[in-house]
Amino acid sequence: MPTYKAPVDDVRFLLTDVLQVERYDNLAGFADASPDVVDAILGEGARLCEEVFTPTNQAGDREGCTRHPDGRVTTPTGFRDAYRAYVEGGWMGLSAPADHGGQGLPSYLNTVMQEFLSSANLALGMYPALTQGAVAALMIHGSDEQKRLYLPNMVSGRWTGTMNLTEPHCGTDLGLLTTKAVPDADGSYAITGTKIFISAGEHDLAENIIHLVLARIEGAPAGTKGISLFVVPKMLVGEDGSAGARNAVACGAIERKMGIHGNATCVMNYDGATGWLVGEAHRGLNAMFVMMNEARLAVGVQGLAQSEVAYQNAAAYAKERLQGRALTGAAEPSRPADPIIVHPDVRRNLMTIRAFNEGARALVLWTALAADVSHRSEDAAERQAADDRLGLLTPVVKGVLTDLGFENAVRAQQVLGGHGYIEEWGMSQFVRDARIAMIYEGANGVQAMDLVGRKLPRDAGRAVMAFFGEIEGFCRDNADDVMKPYVEPLAKGLGQLQGSTMWFMNNAFAKPDNAGAGAGEFMHLMGLVAMGYMWARMAKAALARRHEGDGVAARMDAKLVTGRFYMERMMPEAGALARRIEAGSDAVMGLPREMF
Amino acid sequence: MPTYKAPVDDVRFLLTDVLQVERYDNLAGFADASPDVVDAILGEGARLCEEVFTPTNQAGDREGCTRHPDGRVTTPTGFRDAYRAYVEGGWMGLSAPADHGGQGLPSYLNTVMQEFLSSANLALGMYPALTQGAVAALMIHGSDEQKRLYLPNMVSGRWTGTMNLTEPHCGTDLGLLTTKAVPDADGSYAITGTKIFISAGEHDLAENIIHLVLARIEGAPAGTKGISLFVVPKMLVGEDGSAGARNAVACGAIERKMGIHGNATCVMNYDGATGWLVGEAHRGLNAMFVMMNEARLAVGVQGLAQSEVAYQNAAAYAKERLQGRALTGAAEPSRPADPIIVHPDVRRNLMTIRAFNEGARALVLWTALAADVSHRSEDAAERQAADDRLGLLTPVVKGVLTDLGFENAVRAQQVLGGHGYIEEWGMSQFVRDARIAMIYEGANGVQAMDLVGRKLPRDAGRAVMAFFGEIEGFCRDNADDVMKPYVEPLAKGLGQLQGSTMWFMNNAFAKPDNAGAGAGEFMHLMGLVAMGYMWARMAKAALARRHEGDGVAARMDAKLVTGRFYMERMMPEAGALARRIEAGSDAVMGLPREMF
Repeated sequence: MPTYKAPVDDVRFLLTDVLQVERYDNLAGFADASPDVVDAILGEGARLCEEVFTPTNQAGDREGCTRHPDGRVTTPTGFRDAYRAYVEGGWMGLSAPADHGGQGLPSYLNTVMQEFLSSANLALGMYPALTQGAVAALMIHGSDEQKRLYLPNMVSGRWTGTMNLTEPHCGTDLGLLTTKAVPDADGSYAITGTKIFISAGEHDLAENIIHLVLARIEGAPAGTKGISLFVVPKMLVGEDGSAGARNAVACGAIERKMGIHGNATCVMNYDGATGWLVGEAHRGLNAMFVMMNEARLAVGVQGLAQSEVAYQNAAAYAKERLQGRALTGAAEPSRPADPIIVHPDVRRNLMTIRAFNEGARALVLWTALAADVSHRSEDAAERQAADDRLGLLTPVVKGVLTDLGFENAVRAQQVLGGHGYIEEWGMSQFVRDARIAMIYEGANGVQAMDLVGRKLPRDAGRAVMAFFGEIEGFCRDNADDVMKPYVEPLAKGLGQLQGSTMWFMNNAFAKPDNAGAGAGEFMHLMGLVAMGYMWARMAKAALARRHEGDGVAARMDAKLVTGRFYMERMMPEAGALARRIEAGSDAVMGLPREMF
Repeated sequence: MPTYKAPVDDVRFLLTDVLQVERYDNLAGFADASPDVVDAILGEGARLCEEVFTPTNQAGDREGCTRHPDGRVTTPTGFRDAYRAYVEGGWMGLSAPADHGGQGLPSYLNTVMQEFLSSANLALGMYPALTQGAVAALMIHGSDEQKRLYLPNMVSGRWTGTMNLTEPHCGTDLGLLTTKAVPDADGSYAITGTKIFISAGEHDLAENIIHLVLARIEGAPAGTKGISLFVVPKMLVGEDGSAGARNAVACGAIERKMGIHGNATCVMNYDGATGWLVGEAHRGLNAMFVMMNEARLAVGVQGLAQSEVAYQNAAAYAKERLQGRALTGAAEPSRPADPIIVHPDVRRNLMTIRAFNEGARALVLWTALAADVSHRSEDAAERQAADDRLGLLTPVVKGVLTDLGFENAVRAQQVLGGHGYIEEWGMSQFVRDARIAMIYEGANGVQAMDLVGRKLPRDAGRAVMAFFGEIEGFCRDNADDVMKPYVEPLAKGLGQLQGSTMWFMNNAFAKPDNAGAGAGEFMHLMGLVAMGYMWARMAKAALARRHEGDGVAARMDAKLVTGRFYMERMMPEAGALARRIEAGSDAVMGLPREMF
């Protein structure tokens, strides 16, 4: 059975040495996250994931969820107990405001926990992740009454949340949605329609499920400008906040999927269900975007998480499995063969995953910190800069980390050879589970278009210019010999990214297909450079500590080797991506439709 | 349910216009494959695959194979009938010699058929593919008596074959194998041991199963030099060639796998089973390599096949699914949204797959033709040149086509968004089925080492020099303006491949890890250039016919656009691959083992 050990040391290195979070102690809640408190949280969180969540993961895949004839859905063996442990540990409200029952700690800690949970059991971790997204939407757009009725039980984890966007004929293009909302005399609405692909839509983990549902109020304009957001509880909630009668919403079926079998993906039928408007009428997409942006970051983290757990199991196998001899002569002549980790091709696979994992983790935490600053800083300029960075990096984190997270799960599976293909070994599940993250919360092609079509041009490119400026500044300030193996490839990659950005400016306005045809590559180019920047910062931090004892030196040396691997083996992709982007859209769009 | 249409027109274009197979009419069997005969075979083969094999594919995945308490294994619903239709059509013996009951046609036709079958139902297509591999090994290394006893029923398809290499503790490193063979007085051997991952090891499709088994004769030297090959029929075969009593070999379990559920992957227990030596004692690996080389080509074809069928279903979806509007303005203003094929990112995915499929199909047929020439030519120099090319390209076809075939199945799945993740749509099965091809018949890392460590240096680089020379010659001979968009990028890619080859020569002898660390990238660089060469040849053939009517011009124009896409979007990877190779092994091997 696969195992998992949460990368606590790496997180601590990032928080303390690379991001130096103590610089932000002026932000609300940050001073409470003292090094001791953070250590305790990381330790307890790791324990929960390693000892409670991980053991339920494989059985969850094998059993899946079951929909009973009466519409009830039960989760796999062990999920209820594991979720209860999560709730009792107070994890759901880790970063939620104290006035809704949360602990008010920085949200980067919640992001760390999302990684650990998603490595340990992705399908189970989705239930709380969706709830936290729904909490965020209600916190910003809900009325005081809605907050009072729903948030305390959601923040505690007694109730969970969902987001209901997709319908059979519309996913990405929400303007097509037809679920309708008819106003009742009492100010509520009767919601009718069918939603599909609703993760955690029905289950047995919580007493109540709070659905956030996009629908069109009768008579509303067509398209996306006529969509409103509604809160539709599974059990109607009384004035005293208790769950009461059943609402007219039910799970009609659960899907048979490639992976995340432990998460119930439901067809939800709304049959005149009672719902209440959240935020303004016809402005539902705005409210939903709060939830989606939180969720996109969380989904990017899922990509990293699957890559990490797949890596750990592949590395363990590679150190144990004996097969063949090192090219440089037997490494363990007393044994019948060498462990396969002596083979350069096996190493190359492991190092590729490792260099991604550590770079991606840094990028995730840097982005999560931007979210904290954008929400909590009292300095408007600082808030704006952080919000710019958050907006720019969110599609990159979602798109790039899930594409590469999946690729790495496949790569790790390959290390096990034939055993990797057998379900018993667990690698197949990592691959199958990781696959969904490239699709949901906006397929990665949509993330790329969000980056290129919306985030790049916004405010005359202010966000991307600040991003370039920061990396240029870092390269300038670290032009010494010892940093050269990191800074030089980074600067080259940045130049290619800047060149491609300029190419879009010169070629995409007149011919928008040029932007569309290169968007996917641009997103990956930006991810490559962003992780490269993280690696340069990690190398700098590692160089500063490499002479310490207590195993620190060995860890810092490993960082430096892995950073060199990133620069030598991964950064070269930047040139190929730039050439593809700058080839434009002629060949991409040249084939008549009927020839496909 | 997914559909499939065999790419008959494309095959015909390759055979007639690109490879001009009529030039080989002097080879045995080739003149029989007249254009009319080939047309009839392609048409009948397409019909079998489209109408008989395809409809069984999804049910095969859902049901899987069943092992019964008595050790019998049954295949999914419909497999027996489909296999019977295959046998009755005489397909098993298409390219087998007439003196064993085959039709003696060129083996490239069988390779075409392998593609069609593997697209239609990979799990089912494996049963005949393994049989053909076993036939090849017996034909070359079997005694006359063995040929007489086994081949007619195998060539007809009444009996199937397997290859038994892997054991629990040894896969790639066959030197570790422990299955033992004890000589009996009658010249047979008693075989005892456990083999795992035996595809088609037990099933209900055929009356008998002929296992080819690697084992160590008692007292044989350790390592690979003490391994012999045995033929071990499931049912012992009488002098008259009829299947009689049960041999002491049985399926102990079938594996629960990620995909190819319709193929029984068996643990085979040999409990003093009666077997007969094939070829010389202790030279079993040589004999097995005949089978493995055939099989490697066939597995490469499987990668292409899954990419092709996944493409077809993704393209059909992209032409139907309405979502969003073209960046250049509504393409179909009268409908609520445009079909998603208008979006450049969707096109980019489809074009990437298409450019691979057509390039890979050309490479496969070019390689299959080399196999035919190497076996059938009467000119020793021609045979040697063809054998050189076959040896050089076999690991490339196996490794590159399965890596990219899988990537493309994933890419096609992405086109369907959330529906791609739901089993009902069939895209998940293509991904899960395609995954195995990167692993079996030698994991792709092993293919890369075979290429770099064995095929490159062999005969002082004769094969690779001939390959370079041929492409250089083509580029020289086609330096005109109209071919420039194809020849120029090809020449650049070739230069990068030659540079990396030179780099190995200068850096890998003293430090073999430099070869190991770059082998995977080198294999892909070679595949990229080889398919690029195919594209340049296809472009030349298309240019010659683009003024014809009857829809030919449209097809030829499509070829030219797709070829440009290949050159602009795929060839740029060559530079990144070369830079990775030339970074060497320091960072790859630099981490101490305990730090993983």
